[in-house]
Amino acid sequence: MPPNELAATLVVLDLAGIFVFAVTGALVAVRKQLDIFGALVLGGVTGLGGGFIRDVLIGATPPAALADWRYLLVPVGAGLLTFAFHPTIGRLERVFTLFDAFGLALFCVTGALKAVDHGLGPLPAALLGMVTGIGGGILRDLLTARVPVIFEGALYATPALAGAAVAVLLDRTDLPLVLVAAAGFSTCLGWRLLALVRGWRAPLPKGPANV
Amino acid sequence: MPPNELAATLVVLDLAGIFVFAVTGALVAVRKQLDIFGALVLGGVTGLGGGFIRDVLIGATPPAALADWRYLLVPVGAGLLTFAFHPTIGRLERVFTLFDAFGLALFCVTGALKAVDHGLGPLPAALLGMVTGIGGGILRDLLTARVPVIFEGALYATPALAGAAVAVLLDRTDLPLVLVAAAGFSTCLGWRLLALVRGWRAPLPKGPANV
Amino acid sequence: MPPNELAATLVVLDLAGIFVFAVTGALVAVRKQLDIFGALVLGGVTGLGGGFIRDVLIGATPPAALADWRYLLVPVGAGLLTFAFHPTIGRLERVFTLFDAFGLALFCVTGALKAVDHGLGPLPAALLGMVTGIGGGILRDLLTARVPVIFEGALYATPALAGAAVAVLLDRTDLPLVLVAAAGFSTCLGWRLLALVRGWRAPLPKGPANV
Repeated sequence: MPPNELAATLVVLDLAGIFVFAVTGALVAVRKQLDIFGALVLGGVTGLGGGFIRDVLIGATPPAALADWRYLLVPVGAGLLTFAFHPTIGRLERVFTLFDAFGLALFCVTGALKAVDHGLGPLPAALLGMVTGIGGGILRDLLTARVPVIFEGALYATPALAGAAVAVLLDRTDLPLVLVAAAGFSTCLGWRLLALVRGWRAPLPKGPANV
Repeated sequence: MPPNELAATLVVLDLAGIFVFAVTGALVAVRKQLDIFGALVLGGVTGLGGGFIRDVLIGATPPAALADWRYLLVPVGAGLLTFAFHPTIGRLERVFTLFDAFGLALFCVTGALKAVDHGLGPLPAALLGMVTGIGGGILRDLLTARVPVIFEGALYATPALAGAAVAVLLDRTDLPLVLVAAAGFSTCLGWRLLALVRGWRAPLPKGPANV
Repeated sequence: MPPNELAATLVVLDLAGIFVFAVTGALVAVRKQLDIFGALVLGGVTGLGGGFIRDVLIGATPPAALADWRYLLVPVGAGLLTFAFHPTIGRLERVFTLFDAFGLALFCVTGALKAVDHGLGPLPAALLGMVTGIGGGILRDLLTARVPVIFEGALYATPALAGAAVAVLLDRTDLPLVLVAAAGFSTCLGWRLLALVRGWRAPLPKGPANV
């Protein structure tokens, strides 16, 4: 693929990921009976929050999404659609869980590579890739006063960390960027989908908790 | 008004806005039976938090409030007064709701114009103006583990966004800055007060929420 | 002590403080029945969060911990150990409360002096020292949807603020840095331990709270 096409493809994928994440945020708002503004804010925070945390931590401010109106309008559209058609969208939640895995796989790779670009070492870059993928959902749960769902056994952050790590490590080789990104993306997506299909769960603590 | 007087007036208004916001934060702390330190922290976070979020996102660090001790002492004073006289202040809450609207109208305009100053486009600048106005209250609610009240139907963020947008748009014309600020301020304040007086509510989601 | 030994000692103390804070975070995760990943994230956030907030606010990004893998591996180790041996560690909680006081005393001093180094005035530098000490615990409580425990009467933030203030003020004299740090450290540690031993509590609001 020529570089221009690749860049355009990445933007489209990025916006698609933001859209899906924003829908999950707006759905939570609707279920908490928040108003339309709450749906828009939760949509925006879920779609863009992971990238905001990453950009603030690596000092890349203002975050890229604030410099490109498309990145702001996509979550607004997702929030309005969800607010209006939430019964339908709620029924499609299993489909969205699949799309959400795509968004996660995409964000962990782009987040990790951006951190590498800003001079971070491999370990923090992989961590920031994971943060890019999971940060929006954590902020969504914070804003609705619940313990982040991804801490309750779902294998969600581990695939993101694995995908980010694969991308960071391969980026140190001579492989072309598109292959590096594809390998990280596939690692995260494959692991996440397998976990969903097989019902894999992260280990919970054993023994009495209230010692 | 000569520029020096205008600047001094703006600082006084800004401090007044911070004071009122800090009182609302400290009142929440008292009602949750938190200690005096909790009242001070919640007061400070509510009064200064919106500006901190804006400054971190646009990369204007350290935030202005950290470079001017008056901005730190005002919320401390508001917190101590509220802690000591909370039954009286609690009875005056309707008065404070009016003052709070002034603070909101002021912060959305100053926040938006600061974002423009830092080179942000009109859409993100208006959003950051809104964030400056509502961010402190959201952090206050986060720290007391409740869903932000402004998501529950009160028309609060919409006037802030409107006021910020008016200021950002007029700032692109030849109007003097004082008129630009006044127009944004009046838009937010008028809308917010009308919403309070008329009991306007933001739309809530329709239909079954638990699909 | 020669400068190299002093620097090495400080790093070891810093890592020890992060370890202890991370254990408290992972213990909260275990008690909330979160999965192993939740224990790691809560451990990391509690151990490193205060320093991250400070570094983001003073514009020292990326935070130091992201540039040194030891700072990332220590909370991972603390999280894994706590997850595996939480019944034993839970029984040792009183011991950890003592260690936690050491961590607090260390962080408030190093945080305040770093803020001074970045050009902040004495008042904001002392506040940021306090934030470095208490920020991780506040983030831990946010992520588990509970009101920060340090707002509920424990004398925790006040010693941190006092220790930070002592360090900031003495830093303006000709005293050698090691004495400046030791004085701030002792102030915080002594106050905190006295409060623990004597059962001192911060004042709670008087009178009816629901006015």
